[in-house]
Amino acid sequence: MDTKELLPAIEAELQKQVSRLDAPRTKDFHAMLTYHMGWTGEDAGSEATGKRIRPILALLTTAACGASWQPALPAAAAIELVHNFSLVHDDIQDNSPTRRGRKTVWTKWGAPMAINVGDALFVMSSQAIVDLKKDYPAETVLKAAEILHNTCLDLTRGQYLDMSYEERNDLGVEDYWHMISGKTSALIAACCHIGALLGGADEEKQEVYRSFGHYLGLAFQVQDDILGIWGDEKVTGKSVASDLVEGKNSLPVLAGLDKKGKFAERWAQGPIKAEEVGEVARLLASEGGLLVAQEAAKQMTDLALMNLREADPQGETGEALFELTNRLLGRAQ
Amino acid sequence: MDTKELLPAIEAELQKQVSRLDAPRTKDFHAMLTYHMGWTGEDAGSEATGKRIRPILALLTTAACGASWQPALPAAAAIELVHNFSLVHDDIQDNSPTRRGRKTVWTKWGAPMAINVGDALFVMSSQAIVDLKKDYPAETVLKAAEILHNTCLDLTRGQYLDMSYEERNDLGVEDYWHMISGKTSALIAACCHIGALLGGADEEKQEVYRSFGHYLGLAFQVQDDILGIWGDEKVTGKSVASDLVEGKNSLPVLAGLDKKGKFAERWAQGPIKAEEVGEVARLLASEGGLLVAQEAAKQMTDLALMNLREADPQGETGEALFELTNRLLGRAQ
Repeated sequence: MDTKELLPAIEAELQKQVSRLDAPRTKDFHAMLTYHMGWTGEDAGSEATGKRIRPILALLTTAACGASWQPALPAAAAIELVHNFSLVHDDIQDNSPTRRGRKTVWTKWGAPMAINVGDALFVMSSQAIVDLKKDYPAETVLKAAEILHNTCLDLTRGQYLDMSYEERNDLGVEDYWHMISGKTSALIAACCHIGALLGGADEEKQEVYRSFGHYLGLAFQVQDDILGIWGDEKVTGKSVASDLVEGKNSLPVLAGLDKKGKFAERWAQGPIKAEEVGEVARLLASEGGLLVAQEAAKQMTDLALMNLREADPQGETGEALFELTNRLLGRAQ
Repeated sequence: MDTKELLPAIEAELQKQVSRLDAPRTKDFHAMLTYHMGWTGEDAGSEATGKRIRPILALLTTAACGASWQPALPAAAAIELVHNFSLVHDDIQDNSPTRRGRKTVWTKWGAPMAINVGDALFVMSSQAIVDLKKDYPAETVLKAAEILHNTCLDLTRGQYLDMSYEERNDLGVEDYWHMISGKTSALIAACCHIGALLGGADEEKQEVYRSFGHYLGLAFQVQDDILGIWGDEKVTGKSVASDLVEGKNSLPVLAGLDKKGKFAERWAQGPIKAEEVGEVARLLASEGGLLVAQEAAKQMTDLALMNLREADPQGETGEALFELTNRLLGRAQ
């Protein structure tokens, strides 16, 4: 199965959900949301929308459980709307001027409007999940809503930890796992959990799919951390080692700090400047920061694949799930 | 029935909902929410919590339909959590340093944390509404969730209009009604609508209760607008005429602008200074701004009471609903 088949259906469902604001008095408000979603405004298009990995993952999981994916579209949209709500608020919180090469919502319309745009996307995710009631029993819809809301609270926990970590210099590797479990992994776990629920899987299998998503999210984030320091700029599309300059508490950095060596010494002295990035990255690698992260990425990838094999996804979509996982984790197939 | 009976039950339910963040790693995050809710921190107590009018209204409506109010507590909490989410984000958007005489969340912890606190309260409102499933059929819970989410989208619409109006000088009275229907009235209408739904009222009666809440919200806001310009500082607790200084697009102001007289002339010249507030308020009153607002408040109050009488609320709680309405609208009983 070609996952690209799913994309037009996902975009159509997302547009339907967001069209709730498409009315004369809220035309400009609606335009802020469609801009962020990548459909309108300067540089709109597939580069601007992002890859829609989360809804694809949800729909593939539903199909791999042997059910039809079309009725699950509102859930897929709900998850992507949560992701986008968190991006809009994140960009304000991190003071980020651009995302995917375009101005962020707050840069264009100011923080007060951007807070409200995020809030609207957040509400629409709840409305989308309730839309499942067209095709599923009310109990199933409530279960999906519960998973989604619990995940959203995890996101706020992860965001809180991330922000509070900025002021701390006593962090260890354990703190890292707590933060990314909320910030990155919870929503990917929810994709697979809700996907399996709507696919008719029993609770045990739902948990296996959920675990698959959890480890996939962790592996994905660790890999992203590695690329953020030692990645190829042409591949990542962002200035390499910007994570060092931004002082991001990534896994390699925390592993390096644990060593209490020269890297930790330099880190404690204040922000890394752009011109010393290559040297600090080499120092961190020589003190084991790269190796720890690579080992962790490998472990999490193995756990993700182990769970996916146990889930035993069926047919073409099952194969597509393995392919997507391998692609996301940058492994040869 | 004394509505004060309801308060301890409401506070207990709210605390239960918010306790989802009460864990070792998110202790400080939890404290930000309990501070905002008025339970902890400096000047905590009944002044800081606010009056909890919305949950009281919801529970009274349920009881006035002849059902027990206790199982509806999660819905009452959900509505109050939505209200408080919107206050936290509003305070950032309006740059308000204090609320109810205490520092706002963003003043204490910064805007990025405050955005996240609002988001968490918002998620908890969705979690609270799903908690209804303990005592109600799944279809009823989904219906309540749908009303709540639609109301939240109305709130973002109202907030958008409010913010976009700040840059406009061509507003009329009609624009005002659109804005406050979203900002103030939608949530009060939802209290009565959800309250009636959980009270077992049929759809027709639910709509009558909803209309009651809608007009109650409008009347309440118009009255608040009047007090914001001509109110007694000792009664309102805020500096009188601060609405004029803040340039708020309230009903009296928009009615005054419609007149295109001397008030409109002065308004167009820029911000009203504190020392000219008395004079401008007298000017606005002499050009009919006060009268238009008083007439509107009376009309909306009449419509609210007409709908409440049509809803025919039962027993002691029915009487309490009339009492609460009269108290909110400042009418002698």
